[in-house]
Amino acid sequence: MNSRLKSVYSQLKQRGLDALLVSLPANISYLVESLSRDSYLLVSEKENIYFTDSRYVEEAKSFLKNNAQLKECNGSVFKHIASAVIDLGFKKLGIEERYLPFAEFNKIKECAGEGFDLIPTHSIIEDKRQVKDAGEIAKIRKATQITDLVLEHIQKFIVPGVKEIEIVAEAERFIRYHEARASAFDIIVASGHNSSQPHHLSGARKLQDHEPVLIDLGVDYQGYKSDLTRVFFLGKIKVLMRKVYDIVLKAQEKAIKIIRPGAEMAEIDRVAREYIASKGYAKYFTHNLGHGFGLAVHEDPRISRNEASSLKPGMTFTVEPGIYLPNKFGIRIEDMILVTRTGCEVLSGFINNRN
Amino acid sequence: MNSRLKSVYSQLKQRGLDALLVSLPANISYLVESLSRDSYLLVSEKENIYFTDSRYVEEAKSFLKNNAQLKECNGSVFKHIASAVIDLGFKKLGIEERYLPFAEFNKIKECAGEGFDLIPTHSIIEDKRQVKDAGEIAKIRKATQITDLVLEHIQKFIVPGVKEIEIVAEAERFIRYHEARASAFDIIVASGHNSSQPHHLSGARKLQDHEPVLIDLGVDYQGYKSDLTRVFFLGKIKVLMRKVYDIVLKAQEKAIKIIRPGAEMAEIDRVAREYIASKGYAKYFTHNLGHGFGLAVHEDPRISRNEASSLKPGMTFTVEPGIYLPNKFGIRIEDMILVTRTGCEVLSGFINNRN
Repeated sequence: MNSRLKSVYSQLKQRGLDALLVSLPANISYLVESLSRDSYLLVSEKENIYFTDSRYVEEAKSFLKNNAQLKECNGSVFKHIASAVIDLGFKKLGIEERYLPFAEFNKIKECAGEGFDLIPTHSIIEDKRQVKDAGEIAKIRKATQITDLVLEHIQKFIVPGVKEIEIVAEAERFIRYHEARASAFDIIVASGHNSSQPHHLSGARKLQDHEPVLIDLGVDYQGYKSDLTRVFFLGKIKVLMRKVYDIVLKAQEKAIKIIRPGAEMAEIDRVAREYIASKGYAKYFTHNLGHGFGLAVHEDPRISRNEASSLKPGMTFTVEPGIYLPNKFGIRIEDMILVTRTGCEVLSGFINNRN
Repeated sequence: MNSRLKSVYSQLKQRGLDALLVSLPANISYLVESLSRDSYLLVSEKENIYFTDSRYVEEAKSFLKNNAQLKECNGSVFKHIASAVIDLGFKKLGIEERYLPFAEFNKIKECAGEGFDLIPTHSIIEDKRQVKDAGEIAKIRKATQITDLVLEHIQKFIVPGVKEIEIVAEAERFIRYHEARASAFDIIVASGHNSSQPHHLSGARKLQDHEPVLIDLGVDYQGYKSDLTRVFFLGKIKVLMRKVYDIVLKAQEKAIKIIRPGAEMAEIDRVAREYIASKGYAKYFTHNLGHGFGLAVHEDPRISRNEASSLKPGMTFTVEPGIYLPNKFGIRIEDMILVTRTGCEVLSGFINNRN
């Protein structure tokens, strides 16, 4: 039994639960320490059971080891789950209310009958995932290194006349030759006025001279994600673009400077936001300052105005201020941060802005 | 107002609902006829409202036109939704029970107070999506053509010594140079014994002589997906492999032969399954015969033993029998079918098995 599973048991005790039904794939992957797909995991001190179908049985056998029993399900997985809970004599089953669809909740409840109660829970596994262990940090470092190689590779395609989607194509090819399994998300290449949409869909627009190109990319290395944004300029940089770029960069520097264990997440966001506001661009910085990353590209913690929690060593998150001038252009600079015992490390610090 | 939205209104009337809150991205994309992300759509005869956040506002403006009002949400989207429902004087709000998480259901309920009731529904939009219109079929044809080009392109990489993931890399690059937005799913390249896992994760294994290579790939063309599987053989084909291949191919042919409007889905599955059983391989065909595809790569209808519904003209689905011999090899042949008025068309019929 690995220590991640064991640590869930004490959580269950504290909450008066006999077992937890884990349904979010990233949470299951975390607990079994391998990429899990189309499965449910019942976690309890008495027994852990992994429910999946025939398509994934061979794969599951190879990674479950002594962490969980494998149950191959034909027909309704919910009947299998309810039977197992009843057989084990459990009365209180926790479920992940943020991910379990309403209909699945009701199906399990129906199968449970009077046998056991369903208790909504949230964040039991997500809270643990916020703080990374040494093995996880090593994988994140590797994902970051691959990201650096990708950026270097695509330099030669960042020239006038090339389509946004062609840069995506070259990146998607390259990463798979460098030990990444896939990209971490739809890679964003946003040229010219397209960069004013924070999540632009890369398309057939061709890069042009004297325009910015915003590139937001990340890779998946053994399940762990990287997430980085850089803005490149083709030809001469217009005065306003340079000005906005410098404001965003300075806002990021100010935020990173105060990252240390104990610092409040809202405060990190506030420092960047207030600097941008002081320069007159408050209403153009329209999203949170950052988000955690790891097995998911977006996970807790959220670095937001409304997040009163404090940072802990081992947390990994992005710091990505942005200014988006509608129909003109947008600038975002995104780096990956690891909270250390005394402050922080910019994991992506060695990836320079190649302007 | 487009006709897809209008057709929902009569569904609402039949069910005694004032409005439906659509939350599945593919359902929203279908109704607004454009790729939608991170949004909720309230559909009612009185007014349609599209809820999203600042990241997607510019994009939404460009495609919503007169189909729905745009509501940019700061803070809790559920408060915005509940306010809108109350302002419009609605008493019965349908929700999509298969996709709305349990916690979101409760949040909306809490915001609703005594103002309105939440009514679980399912399949209102999915049922409509099963039958494709001419515009959708044209996009699926284009996705299929691109898939053919990809297969032709990757021929030269299907040689001993090349890694599975490198073939994925070349395909992922190529499709983006040919008008596809992305692959439709994680492309599967499964070599040798890896092919015995129906959903193998492509990895670092190198192709070897005298082995099969199973390739399952699809592309996304303007939101519409293709999905096709071919098995290639390197060098000499072993007798057992040839035998199993021929059984799978024959099973597919038999199933396709009986596809016509009115045919029962279970019957299509049964014909292929019984043929495979007659050859002694029943327990090695471990999944359904096929699945619908369109805006999602897996959608209704399911071509399964348990599906008593009948086929209608305009339905598109895969027919993909498979035989998987654990730790030895697996064979799956997957084609894309369109039900016509009198029978069916194999959309991917022009893509030969290039053995």
